[in-house]
Amino acid sequence: MKEKRKIVVIGGSAAGPKAAARAKRLDPDAEVTVIQKAPEMSMASCGYPYFVGGVFDNRNALLSTPYGEVRDPNFFLHTKGVTARTETEVVAIDRQSHNVCCRDLKTGATDDLSYDKLIIATGARPRKPVIPGVDLEGVTTLQSMKDADFLRKIRDDKTITKAVVIGGGLIGIETCEALQLSGIDITVIEMLPQILMFLDWELAKVLENHVRSKAANVITDVRLSSFIGEAGKLAGIRLENGTELPCQLAILATGVIPDIELAKNAGLTIGETGGLAVNEFMQTSDPDIYAVGDCVELIHRITGKKTRAPFGDLANLEGRVAGENAVLGNQVTFPGTIHTGICKVFDFSAGSTGLSEFRARQEGYENLVTVVNASLDKPEFMGAKLLISKMVVNGQTGKLLGVQCVGPGDVSKQIATAAMAILGKLTVSDLVTADLPYAPPFSLPIDHFIATAHLMENKLKGRLVGISAVQLKAQLNQGVPPFILDVRTPAEFDQMRLGIGETLIPVGELRDRLGDLPDDKDREVICYCKISLRGYEAARVLKAAGWKNVKVLEGGIMAWPYRREK
Amino acid sequence: MKEKRKIVVIGGSAAGPKAAARAKRLDPDAEVTVIQKAPEMSMASCGYPYFVGGVFDNRNALLSTPYGEVRDPNFFLHTKGVTARTETEVVAIDRQSHNVCCRDLKTGATDDLSYDKLIIATGARPRKPVIPGVDLEGVTTLQSMKDADFLRKIRDDKTITKAVVIGGGLIGIETCEALQLSGIDITVIEMLPQILMFLDWELAKVLENHVRSKAANVITDVRLSSFIGEAGKLAGIRLENGTELPCQLAILATGVIPDIELAKNAGLTIGETGGLAVNEFMQTSDPDIYAVGDCVELIHRITGKKTRAPFGDLANLEGRVAGENAVLGNQVTFPGTIHTGICKVFDFSAGSTGLSEFRARQEGYENLVTVVNASLDKPEFMGAKLLISKMVVNGQTGKLLGVQCVGPGDVSKQIATAAMAILGKLTVSDLVTADLPYAPPFSLPIDHFIATAHLMENKLKGRLVGISAVQLKAQLNQGVPPFILDVRTPAEFDQMRLGIGETLIPVGELRDRLGDLPDDKDREVICYCKISLRGYEAARVLKAAGWKNVKVLEGGIMAWPYRREK
Repeated sequence: MKEKRKIVVIGGSAAGPKAAARAKRLDPDAEVTVIQKAPEMSMASCGYPYFVGGVFDNRNALLSTPYGEVRDPNFFLHTKGVTARTETEVVAIDRQSHNVCCRDLKTGATDDLSYDKLIIATGARPRKPVIPGVDLEGVTTLQSMKDADFLRKIRDDKTITKAVVIGGGLIGIETCEALQLSGIDITVIEMLPQILMFLDWELAKVLENHVRSKAANVITDVRLSSFIGEAGKLAGIRLENGTELPCQLAILATGVIPDIELAKNAGLTIGETGGLAVNEFMQTSDPDIYAVGDCVELIHRITGKKTRAPFGDLANLEGRVAGENAVLGNQVTFPGTIHTGICKVFDFSAGSTGLSEFRARQEGYENLVTVVNASLDKPEFMGAKLLISKMVVNGQTGKLLGVQCVGPGDVSKQIATAAMAILGKLTVSDLVTADLPYAPPFSLPIDHFIATAHLMENKLKGRLVGISAVQLKAQLNQGVPPFILDVRTPAEFDQMRLGIGETLIPVGELRDRLGDLPDDKDREVICYCKISLRGYEAARVLKAAGWKNVKVLEGGIMAWPYRREK
Repeated sequence: MKEKRKIVVIGGSAAGPKAAARAKRLDPDAEVTVIQKAPEMSMASCGYPYFVGGVFDNRNALLSTPYGEVRDPNFFLHTKGVTARTETEVVAIDRQSHNVCCRDLKTGATDDLSYDKLIIATGARPRKPVIPGVDLEGVTTLQSMKDADFLRKIRDDKTITKAVVIGGGLIGIETCEALQLSGIDITVIEMLPQILMFLDWELAKVLENHVRSKAANVITDVRLSSFIGEAGKLAGIRLENGTELPCQLAILATGVIPDIELAKNAGLTIGETGGLAVNEFMQTSDPDIYAVGDCVELIHRITGKKTRAPFGDLANLEGRVAGENAVLGNQVTFPGTIHTGICKVFDFSAGSTGLSEFRARQEGYENLVTVVNASLDKPEFMGAKLLISKMVVNGQTGKLLGVQCVGPGDVSKQIATAAMAILGKLTVSDLVTADLPYAPPFSLPIDHFIATAHLMENKLKGRLVGISAVQLKAQLNQGVPPFILDVRTPAEFDQMRLGIGETLIPVGELRDRLGDLPDDKDREVICYCKISLRGYEAARVLKAAGWKNVKVLEGGIMAWPYRREK
């Protein structure tokens, strides 16, 4: 009789259980065991902020199947045929003897478990800044079910009035929203010049302004120097610029670091990014050991370089690949990531796929072309909402490198569409005629994504000369103001305006009022409207009339990240 | 001095104005004239049903820019630099002399207008069935602003209690919803066996059931024989099966036919589908004449054959291409369509891109593989809604041929993602590891689209043997019932069940209750649950335990298009 294959999976949160279930389905004779440190398994950890914020109240929903069965060891045994041991830690991997040493966290007892193939899914842990007071009571993270329970209790008990979130990344912003919805006065502290580093600065600022409009404060460009305690409890924080903020709660959201101690101690190769190195089969430097989830490093599919991508969706997809390869031999590959991500930020969403301009420049791309487009997501009469996108392409090849999108509109569809376009290696000339679903309840006749590609095409062909808000602002700061032309209606101007020395000439009057423009046809003229569609129209009129240096302010007023006069 | 280029555009609804504006922007010296028969221009005609149904009340919203300016000849002149003549008909094209003969519909006066390049955008008109009584008062269409005004007045006046919609296509179903929302008792009459022919039968039935649940009746598979009049007014309809339905209003939605009389009379080539033939530059058989919008035929990008695709989004994209080519020479191409479409059907949406199974078989594709997947669109705790998708791939190459999706969930994102995947020529093995945006407010960790691809991969690799609801039903009708296994919980079974002779064994008990299965290991066993994820799990368990002929009912109970016991 054939020996039953033994598969051991270390980690029972996301990637681990997926790998285990897949392995068992494809080799029903295999003995599959999952070792999990926490008391819970298969936690929907991305849902913690929504539980904390009171979007739903049933804690079990985070731990259950859609039909209400809790994913505990009993569920795994009977439904999946997988043995799961919770509150158990793997303390060592003996690659020679193909054993892992387990310790029961309740009893302290240890035992050895042998494996034919091992799958490491140890995840990542919150980065804990080395700052005085970091161990005070009231300084926490939102990483585990225990953290979620702790913060949810704070919401329910209403014991806290002021909190800070350290770190303005995805988790930080989601946590900020959760606590703000709990009625807590929140300040987000970010040491970088912006929140949400997957966005370029100008889009991040739009989000930052939105967060502030929701009465959560955001302080960027400043480092935390210490947590201030009173009788062992957190009482406030001190920033490097000397500012002190009183608070009874601080949530650390300064990123995660791969949990690779076990793998490192076993002599497995650690990659340049600090994640466990794996090949395309999700196999570590030991062919009998696979690794998946937040502890590994992946290939960035655009740059070809190593990167980390601790996202719940990828963890599942990696687990599926490793589970199959562990039992069937190396059958399937995981090609890597394009860093697609999205988060909800109060009434806005923010998403990104591929490379931002900042990231692309960091990676050494030259000849980048970018464009910012602001438009509604569907016709106004259908209850439209705003979308602001930034598209980044390789100017040489026209290939799409990245898209970011923010706003109250349907960001999720925009980013999914863009991600698929990047995976399909499409160029701008493919995108301008894309056949996307249109009906008024869902999109504009020319979908925002295609309209962004149209602007990009106009730019690539030299028909649209754009200027970003950042560039214009820099020029204004240097005291060399161009002629600035707002081409909206007087009613719109009364309601909202930049106040940067602009002249108002509605686009419909422009052809008759060319005399109001500078006589000097070489003078730089910047046109804009609410979203710069009319701005583009105006620029074409002026160019036709002989002005040589006409630019369009990309994204118009809606994408202006600075303070407006009105 | 260079002669100014003269561009004449026939048709001012969607494709025409887009072509005109684009031409003028790219050649500001050109004299661009649009001739429009209707009194209105640039109507958001896809919005008519929502105006009729009272989703919004401001009629002008259908005719205005997002900033509230009505797109009338004055707007076109001042904002776009384009001359527009409304209530004017082109009665003949003289290709020899490069003239069009125009007639003013108010005065009857005619004049000639010369062109260098002509763009035909004459659209399509409703197909009017040759049936007694079709000209009775009360028989109408929803094609023009006048129609929309007429139907809106009916809503506002509440003069009508019973209406029928002839034709269950996209426009028919949208019109049905609009009138039902107006408090009118509605019946949709469709001569084919199903509504919404862009969907395969089983998905269309899910929609049909939903429409019925909203108190609008649907009768398929029956032809209309006559409209019954009383004193010149519609009083009812008679079907070929003898049924008579009283009604005071009938809306014809039996498709559109390209308006090509003018082009035909001018000797331009008409294509095999009845649309005006154009090349990839949107140029007709006369190099000085382009054509765009609902009057042309296009290339189907998957089959390579000619097809018609009268959609508002494509009209705009085609107009943009023709406008550019008319003034700059043949610079840009329009590659055709993949028939991407979507519509709202009460609380459900229905979308499709690429080929349905029915269509693919019609086109002669062999070795097709299809899969139906039902799942939530996001985690249950975030207020998830159901999605049911059907994916069609080429079994030889694994290339994605089409995706249909219906349900109350986020169908629009699913179809946009699928459309982009088809345009990128992606295969199932590309889709199973796609990097899409994930966060709980927007999707499941494994997005519905990727999950569908996972099922498809399992099927392609022989790990999942599916049976469609249609196949199972046929088998049951033949009196050869397989062993049918529902693997949900008893509570779920109490609430909802098929009642087709199934046995209930919850998946978690299955491994311990194999004795309850048929002794004959060759007996066909069909497993399912609510959406067939647990059904798949169960099938793997049974296969491992030796049953040889185990199938999964695709889409489970949620995709079952027939009457359920409960």
